[in-house]
Amino acid sequence: MTLYSQLADRLREHIKLGFFNNGDKLPSVRQLANEHGVSISTVQEAYRILEMEQLVEARPKSGYFVPQKNHVIRMPKLSRPPQRPLDVSLWEDVLNMLLSREKDAFCQLQHAMPAMHSNTLKPLIKSLYELNKHRPYEGMTYGDVRGDYSLREQLTRLTAASGCVLHPDELVITSGCQEALSVCLKAVTKGGDIIAVESPGFYGAMQAIKAADLKALEIPTDPSNGMSIEALKLALDQWPIKAILVTPTVNNPMGYVMPEEKKKALYQLAQAYDIPIIEDDIYGDMVYEFPRPKSIKSYDEDDRVLLCSSFSKSLAPGFRVGWIAPGRYRDKVTHIKYVNSSMCPTLPQIAIANFIRQGGYDKHIRVMRKQYKDARDETLKEINTYFPKGTLISFPAGGFVLWVELPEQYDAVKLSEQAQTKGVSIAPGQLFSATGKYRNCLRLNFCDRTSEIRLEAIKILGNLLAHMQIQEEKKPRKRIQ
Amino acid sequence: MTLYSQLADRLREHIKLGFFNNGDKLPSVRQLANEHGVSISTVQEAYRILEMEQLVEARPKSGYFVPQKNHVIRMPKLSRPPQRPLDVSLWEDVLNMLLSREKDAFCQLQHAMPAMHSNTLKPLIKSLYELNKHRPYEGMTYGDVRGDYSLREQLTRLTAASGCVLHPDELVITSGCQEALSVCLKAVTKGGDIIAVESPGFYGAMQAIKAADLKALEIPTDPSNGMSIEALKLALDQWPIKAILVTPTVNNPMGYVMPEEKKKALYQLAQAYDIPIIEDDIYGDMVYEFPRPKSIKSYDEDDRVLLCSSFSKSLAPGFRVGWIAPGRYRDKVTHIKYVNSSMCPTLPQIAIANFIRQGGYDKHIRVMRKQYKDARDETLKEINTYFPKGTLISFPAGGFVLWVELPEQYDAVKLSEQAQTKGVSIAPGQLFSATGKYRNCLRLNFCDRTSEIRLEAIKILGNLLAHMQIQEEKKPRKRIQ
Repeated sequence: MTLYSQLADRLREHIKLGFFNNGDKLPSVRQLANEHGVSISTVQEAYRILEMEQLVEARPKSGYFVPQKNHVIRMPKLSRPPQRPLDVSLWEDVLNMLLSREKDAFCQLQHAMPAMHSNTLKPLIKSLYELNKHRPYEGMTYGDVRGDYSLREQLTRLTAASGCVLHPDELVITSGCQEALSVCLKAVTKGGDIIAVESPGFYGAMQAIKAADLKALEIPTDPSNGMSIEALKLALDQWPIKAILVTPTVNNPMGYVMPEEKKKALYQLAQAYDIPIIEDDIYGDMVYEFPRPKSIKSYDEDDRVLLCSSFSKSLAPGFRVGWIAPGRYRDKVTHIKYVNSSMCPTLPQIAIANFIRQGGYDKHIRVMRKQYKDARDETLKEINTYFPKGTLISFPAGGFVLWVELPEQYDAVKLSEQAQTKGVSIAPGQLFSATGKYRNCLRLNFCDRTSEIRLEAIKILGNLLAHMQIQEEKKPRKRIQ
Repeated sequence: MTLYSQLADRLREHIKLGFFNNGDKLPSVRQLANEHGVSISTVQEAYRILEMEQLVEARPKSGYFVPQKNHVIRMPKLSRPPQRPLDVSLWEDVLNMLLSREKDAFCQLQHAMPAMHSNTLKPLIKSLYELNKHRPYEGMTYGDVRGDYSLREQLTRLTAASGCVLHPDELVITSGCQEALSVCLKAVTKGGDIIAVESPGFYGAMQAIKAADLKALEIPTDPSNGMSIEALKLALDQWPIKAILVTPTVNNPMGYVMPEEKKKALYQLAQAYDIPIIEDDIYGDMVYEFPRPKSIKSYDEDDRVLLCSSFSKSLAPGFRVGWIAPGRYRDKVTHIKYVNSSMCPTLPQIAIANFIRQGGYDKHIRVMRKQYKDARDETLKEINTYFPKGTLISFPAGGFVLWVELPEQYDAVKLSEQAQTKGVSIAPGQLFSATGKYRNCLRLNFCDRTSEIRLEAIKILGNLLAHMQIQEEKKPRKRIQ
């Protein structure tokens, strides 16, 4: 048992035994670290677990408290995917979702599209149109295939926040994180290879696995702390796995952050089996806590981690600016990136580099983290109120999507179809599995439109589900009569 | 023997026998078509052959003439690549060339980058800037994975000029032609497959073949009319070729246009062997003659041709806007495009769609075709004057690059290294082969900087070559002494 879960157990016991009253302030992180002789981050991890269980409440700049009143929101359990490598299917469904982008939809909860109307983005927008006005030819010529140097320089500053020490020459700019993942998969595998992935996992990565003729081995994944290390080890013993693909820091779709010790353990396992890790860090800067957690790449002493990320979640996806820190695979990654789509447009890269340099990026993500955290708390309560009894909800530690597990009799694909007719769109859970598991699950974003509209949308979904359940219940009754 | 080459033979004989004096006007196209009972395009083909041989001279709006004085420029002969499938090598050399983009270079003849300072591009630049200023959010959200509909609509108009009847839903927008080629290769092959290609051929396509774990079978190619149909047929009989990749309309690097009859024959061969054709038409709109020649896709009655193109040569490469008309492979192509890099940035697509709709595109390419044709004539003469005796030069029918074959003792890689120190860069011929053939060849663009600077650059290259030859000749002498 890890240190942080031992500490969490002890605190949980104390709270449950009534050592603290509702509303009481709990000991500070520093105090507990001293008392128990553990690190600050261990205490933070322990508190984060209790926060997910809603036994404690974090209040900015005040510390941790026992909540006044307990709305108990329960989380999904460890996933149990089939324990063999499988071909990824369901492209048709992914395509349908991608194309269901009606402009007149009332509320679009299906996409992982960030909120983009914050004033903090204005300087970036201005910089981009001014570059288009004053330096158009830089946008028209072929740029460096590895990406604009000024952006790569700024990226070394950003990635330093997750514990990475990188040189601009160790980075390759890509057309978003989708290209980054696709290029990395091709750099470290060949057709027929097996890739270990989280379950549920991001459908874009699943489809990249399919396109590269690879097989996905879905590893049981804990909605609070990620891929099971034990299950991964068993899988590595049993199958010739060629790479591990993980989104450990604000997972998509579940939003967990894998604790540091577990990240280290995952890295050591990759070392022991001598395989690369493709680390998708696209939501990494969107963790609500500050400073952000370390990436797996930060432990990478032998350059086996290919860190992938982009500005699609922190700024805007339409810029199509992502990147790879490919470690020892740099040359191959550069080759595949060139072949894949040649260089990326230069002006968005320069605009983003300026935005970071001038402090706009840090300011923007600070504002967004707060906004998303508030929206999460609101949305969790709303789902808990309006969705059927027995609904389980993930507790995102960052970002703006969450994962809902409905009781087993519900069909999220049906819900999706019905909701669409009411102007509400959702991402059915089966897209997040290689093989259509999670039919009773869905992913929702909590950043489209306003709080009021989202509440309305959640009520619509709740109503549809209530109606669905009634029908399900009615049918057997009729038969009995 | 084809009709046009029969006619060319007859005309050649007449000219050589002195039926016409230097400076005489030759019979008009219509007149010859009537006389010989052949089509207008057959006569045009015949005249084009004689033009390449410099036996006739085309004068805009006046017709064909016997030249006043003959500067005989000789063309390279049919290429003789090794007749077996091979792994593509030379990535290091391609990368070095891609990265040799010094801003202070005197004249960069290595890249196939169009001239972009024409006033006719100004409305496009303005439109893009205004879209970025007034509709920034359209540039920031996820767009349609198949590309912006307004652009696909305009593309159906453009492709109609090459004889294709397409619906917007039959098009997929890509990040330039490089992504188009890469996606198409993946859509129609799997690892280990053999692809028939021209020799020499575009290095970006060669490297895409390498990245997809395919083998390239280089087919003997005629510098005046393209891939040998006979050699292709032999290869198809001998090897399990899975697709044919060709650039038949303004080939890169040689600039030829494959005659219509030959395009048809190539298509029929693909039909007979039931394999797809990937047709790279990136320079198609840059043919000097108007209207532009038909694409192979225009004969495609069973949807086996994947037409790839982009605005990188007609407008500017930095926009990264390309497209595929994938025929029967549409669903697979859409999947791979999504996986490869998700959607493309929206605003450049809208700006280009507006530019086409408002007539700006047609106007721009009309101006550029004229400019490039004049530059070709100038450059051919200059190379013929300043390069060593025995140098063969291709005769581009469009675009802005040409192919130079130096006498065998010359090494273009050495020339490239030496020229770089003088601020002139070239593309060594070996990049255009799977296996480093064509060491005595090079590709040059004739659109960088001004006429004066290009002339200066060609003189520098000529000087280096003269010096090289002297050294080569000195060495054996020394040994003899």
